[in-house]
Amino acid sequence: MNVIKMIIEYDGNNFYGWQRQSTSRSVQGQIEKVLSKIYKCDMTIDGAGRTDAGVHALGQVATFKETQSIPLGNLKRAMNNFLSSDIRIISLEYMTEDFHARYSATGKTYIYKVLNKEERNVFSAGYKYHYPYKIDDNKIKDAIKYFIGEHSFKSFMAAGSSAQNPIRTIHEIKFKRLDDQVEFEFTGNGFLYKMVRIMTAFLLEVGQGHIDPETAKTILENPTRKYTSKVAPAMGLYLKEVYYEI
Amino acid sequence: MNVIKMIIEYDGNNFYGWQRQSTSRSVQGQIEKVLSKIYKCDMTIDGAGRTDAGVHALGQVATFKETQSIPLGNLKRAMNNFLSSDIRIISLEYMTEDFHARYSATGKTYIYKVLNKEERNVFSAGYKYHYPYKIDDNKIKDAIKYFIGEHSFKSFMAAGSSAQNPIRTIHEIKFKRLDDQVEFEFTGNGFLYKMVRIMTAFLLEVGQGHIDPETAKTILENPTRKYTSKVAPAMGLYLKEVYYEI
Repeated sequence: MNVIKMIIEYDGNNFYGWQRQSTSRSVQGQIEKVLSKIYKCDMTIDGAGRTDAGVHALGQVATFKETQSIPLGNLKRAMNNFLSSDIRIISLEYMTEDFHARYSATGKTYIYKVLNKEERNVFSAGYKYHYPYKIDDNKIKDAIKYFIGEHSFKSFMAAGSSAQNPIRTIHEIKFKRLDDQVEFEFTGNGFLYKMVRIMTAFLLEVGQGHIDPETAKTILENPTRKYTSKVAPAMGLYLKEVYYEI
Repeated sequence: MNVIKMIIEYDGNNFYGWQRQSTSRSVQGQIEKVLSKIYKCDMTIDGAGRTDAGVHALGQVATFKETQSIPLGNLKRAMNNFLSSDIRIISLEYMTEDFHARYSATGKTYIYKVLNKEERNVFSAGYKYHYPYKIDDNKIKDAIKYFIGEHSFKSFMAAGSSAQNPIRTIHEIKFKRLDDQVEFEFTGNGFLYKMVRIMTAFLLEVGQGHIDPETAKTILENPTRKYTSKVAPAMGLYLKEVYYEI
């Protein structure tokens, strides 16, 4: 039977994250429930990565093995009809049997959205981190360049993270501003637990002038959590894309 | 004691509408709770108009009589600190004692937002009405011109509405499209219960080719609910502004 890859969009606000849980509403759990209904047997899916409660996705990836053949167009329509309005299947595709959403992934892009103005906005709540302080964009751009390349990101790893190897390669960090709308876009071969949110909180502190841009270089070389105790909230984070070798 | 006018922004998704209710969460109830906490006595407010469950506001207006003098800057900060993230006080202003949010209003502007593409989008759910059908914008613009001016809007009044006089004046209806984002903006001296949502549903049907634009003229002259049984959902509606004589 075929392996099917799905690309998924979700609004994380009303989920206790990606991962299936016995009592709480999760993205994985909702999709498995719908697939089980369609295939009339218990279905499980593998995600490219877990997202925490409140984190959104524009292009999460998951795979499953079909137990009967359903044309992909019909399957997608049926899934989107049964799924609630906060999850949507963007696309379905047949893959070779050795394809795995997590193990075959070669990289990811995350976006972090910030509302950078004094007053909050009710329509950004849950979708952008409200950061009311003045930011010096150039300081952030200065700090960003130190992250690019292969480094040990031990200073940017959540306490209690189980990752054994903190070495990751960051290919690119884009910093964009449109008036009071600020966006960070991180692309790398992988990210440690909460690493994007810790880097974002660090960069915002740099922008505010509390930390020198050069500190990024120092703490990448000599790991310490002294400057990275803050974690930007989940609401601003979006898993944008997962990359695979073609 | 002074009458204070407030302009309020809210995301209607998690409210059972504007109006205070004994057990359900309402915008009025939340603001009164916060004011009662600040003034340390039971406070009530008068809104410019009730909005239904799920309807949003960019500029709802309400008034109350202060029971002690608090500088408006401090009051606004305190209110916004105590209010949840889905309500925000935009401004506070002292008014003369005869000012009343509802009775002094001379007009209102509502916006109705539509996502006009085949596939839904999870981030529009709750904020835009997903209308997947092809729309002929010119037909909508043709129908709109019949609404402008003073008419009996009996054909566009919700069944069971208690309004005695269905005469209203519509000053302007703007129709805007940016790719698949469609917006209607209705400005008038007042609107009957669900009138904006019924007009929107009617105009979308005209756009889809199910109703002739000229039918607008016919049913304004000869009231019938034959073409106006549909009500566009609350999620797309925003109370943008309430006008007062200066």
